[in-house]
Amino acid sequence: MKPTNLENVLKQAGNPVRMLRNSKIGAYVYPVVPYEFSNWRDEQRGWRETAVLFDQTHHMAEFTVKGPDALKLCSYLTINSFNNFQPNRAKQMVPCSHDGYVIGDGILFYLDKDELLFVGRAPTVNWMQFHAESGEFKVETIRDDRSPSYPRGKPVTRRHYRYQIQGPKASEILAKLNGGPLPDVKFFTMDTIKIAGQPVRCLRHGMAGEPGLEIWGPYEQYDEIREVILAAGEEFGLVQVGARAYSTNTLESGWIPSPLPAVYTGEKMKAYREWLPASGYEATGSIAGSFVSDNIEDYYLTPYALGYGPFVKFDHDFVGREALEKLQHQPQRKKVTFEWHPEDLAKIYRSMFDPSMPNYKYMDVPNFNYGSSSYDAVLKGGKMVGFSMFGGASFNERRVLSLGVVDAGINVGDELTLLWGEENGGTNKATVERHTQLEVRVKVAPVPYARDAREAYHQGWRSKQA
Amino acid sequence: MKPTNLENVLKQAGNPVRMLRNSKIGAYVYPVVPYEFSNWRDEQRGWRETAVLFDQTHHMAEFTVKGPDALKLCSYLTINSFNNFQPNRAKQMVPCSHDGYVIGDGILFYLDKDELLFVGRAPTVNWMQFHAESGEFKVETIRDDRSPSYPRGKPVTRRHYRYQIQGPKASEILAKLNGGPLPDVKFFTMDTIKIAGQPVRCLRHGMAGEPGLEIWGPYEQYDEIREVILAAGEEFGLVQVGARAYSTNTLESGWIPSPLPAVYTGEKMKAYREWLPASGYEATGSIAGSFVSDNIEDYYLTPYALGYGPFVKFDHDFVGREALEKLQHQPQRKKVTFEWHPEDLAKIYRSMFDPSMPNYKYMDVPNFNYGSSSYDAVLKGGKMVGFSMFGGASFNERRVLSLGVVDAGINVGDELTLLWGEENGGTNKATVERHTQLEVRVKVAPVPYARDAREAYHQGWRSKQA
Repeated sequence: MKPTNLENVLKQAGNPVRMLRNSKIGAYVYPVVPYEFSNWRDEQRGWRETAVLFDQTHHMAEFTVKGPDALKLCSYLTINSFNNFQPNRAKQMVPCSHDGYVIGDGILFYLDKDELLFVGRAPTVNWMQFHAESGEFKVETIRDDRSPSYPRGKPVTRRHYRYQIQGPKASEILAKLNGGPLPDVKFFTMDTIKIAGQPVRCLRHGMAGEPGLEIWGPYEQYDEIREVILAAGEEFGLVQVGARAYSTNTLESGWIPSPLPAVYTGEKMKAYREWLPASGYEATGSIAGSFVSDNIEDYYLTPYALGYGPFVKFDHDFVGREALEKLQHQPQRKKVTFEWHPEDLAKIYRSMFDPSMPNYKYMDVPNFNYGSSSYDAVLKGGKMVGFSMFGGASFNERRVLSLGVVDAGINVGDELTLLWGEENGGTNKATVERHTQLEVRVKVAPVPYARDAREAYHQGWRSKQA
Repeated sequence: MKPTNLENVLKQAGNPVRMLRNSKIGAYVYPVVPYEFSNWRDEQRGWRETAVLFDQTHHMAEFTVKGPDALKLCSYLTINSFNNFQPNRAKQMVPCSHDGYVIGDGILFYLDKDELLFVGRAPTVNWMQFHAESGEFKVETIRDDRSPSYPRGKPVTRRHYRYQIQGPKASEILAKLNGGPLPDVKFFTMDTIKIAGQPVRCLRHGMAGEPGLEIWGPYEQYDEIREVILAAGEEFGLVQVGARAYSTNTLESGWIPSPLPAVYTGEKMKAYREWLPASGYEATGSIAGSFVSDNIEDYYLTPYALGYGPFVKFDHDFVGREALEKLQHQPQRKKVTFEWHPEDLAKIYRSMFDPSMPNYKYMDVPNFNYGSSSYDAVLKGGKMVGFSMFGGASFNERRVLSLGVVDAGINVGDELTLLWGEENGGTNKATVERHTQLEVRVKVAPVPYARDAREAYHQGWRSKQA
């Protein structure tokens, strides 16, 4: 019988880890935006040296919550404190399961009294919608899913365009657009900027570790607004960033975009699994990498491990609170950057064009993740001490870097071993060719890795942990 | 003053080589088709081991010529003999300049009495349209340009869908679709196959060195026909090939898709340059690679050098005939495959993530060309002996290979030096990051390189030269 929801899917599949590790869904795509405008090296250089325009219109889902209980619903679904949260501010929302494990994260915009907008991957949107539909909250919602991965010539429409302007020259470009300097607003505070004479809403942001602004508006103005920004930015060396380089800005700034949503187990999560479709992110997404456990809970992560410890506030009632109150006192894994050894990387690449060698797992650049969530085992003396979870090449640092979590006892500077590739020739994921595993030396480095980001990016949470 | 045609553009630019080598147009994109369906390694493996579906709907231009002089026009613009050319046959058309240098090439379908259809890159279509509009031929034409490189969510429409089914299992899939084996037609002969009960026109073809079929029909059936083929092919392991792997099938089969059109010089070509737009392929395309000459004619190639010698027939009047009658007696360059040395390739890759090394030109895989036309200098004892013109990685051969031309005295097995990257840190092309040149050892190998193709692909022209 064809399964009708995630719970059915899991029952038929047997082991959820095996199911997700053999998903046929293919690569996690950054859709619609051109792959490269110039080339990914110079596009990465843009956010370090001049300024970049990120087109964030297509790769995330949006979820609007309106009504008298809008704030209450959001607060109930995240670890963050809503004390002092007011319209024109934003938060990085982190919903957890009843057991205190992360379901996802993304940005929650407090647009207006009784109106909030979440932007992020599907798992958080699903979780919000489930609770919005439960009847316990007086809310109305609007869901706008991410654009199709493969539109193949079909028209694509979203509710909003969404751009980010970042980099050392960003303020000059924004001042020129605005016809005068922007007020000096705090990180994650919203404001208005004038573009082509019209007021456009914006959020003070800084994804690549450089100051910048995120703006949004009706999708009908997608092209027009972009043209105006590009024209203004030309004299400052504004660089358009394509889908290929976009995702790698996080390697320098330190956000892990892709934890596995902790929804596959737990009796308290069952109603949710029965609500989730059989064809959604949770049922069809993929797990990539060398870490294998029969227990899917071994892939779950606490907010502490992902660097969201400073957000956890027990000043409100939220799903997972009870569990986190216990978990907080245990030794915590922590987020780190792994710097990969050039000699071992050269081996991986050489194996691609040297038939005398075994072929190692192909490593794409600048983003080498080959699943919706990545879990490569990191070992010390043969013992698992962490995961690598999002990796790629940084032309700015001339390094292959990855973000991940390690056990409490591991420190910056430690040399560890990362197992690259999958066991027994590889799983049956669409993205996996037959290959041989290789041990790669990695050095533990801080988060964020980028020296600029560590030194200059004080306001954000990303440097709090480092 | 804003130039209005290619001749103006060239006058303003000064040296055409400098202009094209610094083009800002970016990568030559294979548009609309998803980048990867599974992964490029397994997609390449598909054409060697099972069967592949190529979606050729979007990356080429089409030009239909109808009328009493349709055949005459085509014959006047190609080196090929039209003796015995009749409806339901196809030819690889190779137009040359008055000086006997190649303008482009592509497939010419003889659809019906007084109706021919050309499919290929823009330079040949432009050249055909110019002559069709000259008034000397009684013809009507329909032009359908390639799809936009960056549709960015806008709908894309073409006149025809165009698919190719190839590989060892292709005949079984085609027989299943057709409800019985296809008649055993000769290479480059057209026929009809039944798909979902309707007759669909097809051409016996074999681009990846394996037998196969190209089919086409109204674009409205683009999705429907694909779905039917995929369903039929599933049990045979039919693999969809994405934009990333598609272009690399030629590395194994031996076609050079990208010679520079020989239109930038010559008094007899001036009227054509004045007709060509200021924003077309010829004015905006790019030349990539280490070969630098002030004289753009040094980038031109004869049909002999590109392996089209066997096509040249002096049994008809055609543009370039006089020049080729002289050129035919000179020593000819010849088409070869270059097999790149793994050690030097490992150096190129390592430089990407080892800050202690100079950084060499980034080499994308599986297609590493970074311009509309590529010209990397190939040397022997410091002396130029040829160009490398189209390169990439073959997972089937576990090699980096490129196609190019060498002087008459160079033989299969010779070890030569290829200069990878551009001079003085690189040109200002959009695709070029600052980098250092590197000498790479290459070994001269036959065309086609693939052992299967050389041994099994007897009917086609590609093996004639090898």
